[in-house]
Amino acid sequence: MFTFKPPSDAVPSCELCQQVGGQPVWAQDAWRVIRVNDTDFPAFYRVIYHHHVAEFSALPELQRQRCMQLVGAVERVLVDRLQPTKINLAALGNMVPHLHWHVIARFDWDSHFPQPIWGMRQREVQPAPVSRLACSLGDLDTAMVAALNAA
Amino acid sequence: MFTFKPPSDAVPSCELCQQVGGQPVWAQDAWRVIRVNDTDFPAFYRVIYHHHVAEFSALPELQRQRCMQLVGAVERVLVDRLQPTKINLAALGNMVPHLHWHVIARFDWDSHFPQPIWGMRQREVQPAPVSRLACSLGDLDTAMVAALNAA
Repeated sequence: MFTFKPPSDAVPSCELCQQVGGQPVWAQDAWRVIRVNDTDFPAFYRVIYHHHVAEFSALPELQRQRCMQLVGAVERVLVDRLQPTKINLAALGNMVPHLHWHVIARFDWDSHFPQPIWGMRQREVQPAPVSRLACSLGDLDTAMVAALNAA
Repeated sequence: MFTFKPPSDAVPSCELCQQVGGQPVWAQDAWRVIRVNDTDFPAFYRVIYHHHVAEFSALPELQRQRCMQLVGAVERVLVDRLQPTKINLAALGNMVPHLHWHVIARFDWDSHFPQPIWGMRQREVQPAPVSRLACSLGDLDTAMVAALNAA
């Protein structure tokens, strides 16, 4: 948990400059990790750069490495705790061109599998996806913080 | 250009262990880059690991860094040569769980923008997308090889 404050160079019209973007999980230096509130995909985190940079390759080399260290740490917790069918990683930003990485645990039973979460829904899922996870979201967040602090 | 040969540890049922996966552009050590033949998204490359590893975080740390160096180099060529509206990066692998990164130049006029390429088509594009690019695919491939050799 952390309290979000827009950086001094925040772009007024950018929602990821102005808002935390989800459930705050962890922040350090120029990076934050939030959990996305998505009923279909409850184990869905985002690694977000504090500053308004659109493309991954526009980051300085050391920040690129740091970025993927954090993405890898989030991925590893999802794999270890939830044994998902697959992890999906993506940095798109067509709507919000402010660098953010989606890290999503996918399951063969989820609403869109094997399609990307942005593709066509394949099925309705009952009971709710969150109840099918191997641990609670609270425990997942706690494991995430520990892994990110060690990354 | 390179000639693809399945690695000695190739998985018989995996299409990215058995086939190059697109137009061969560049290969070195455990990595190859191919161009995807996609009419809607002609400036679409994949960075593929030669060996059958499903998740990014399963790579040794040095290979993770190498992977993102190559992804970043491909991205930078697309940005410099084509001035796209946005770059999209993704490692999904729900269908083929063999590590491959999609690096896609997106344009505000393309068939799906601002949706992900896996989302809903937004428009028909005429004349053909490839004819709208700032350079030919041959020139793009040549620039890609030079950048990857220097990466």
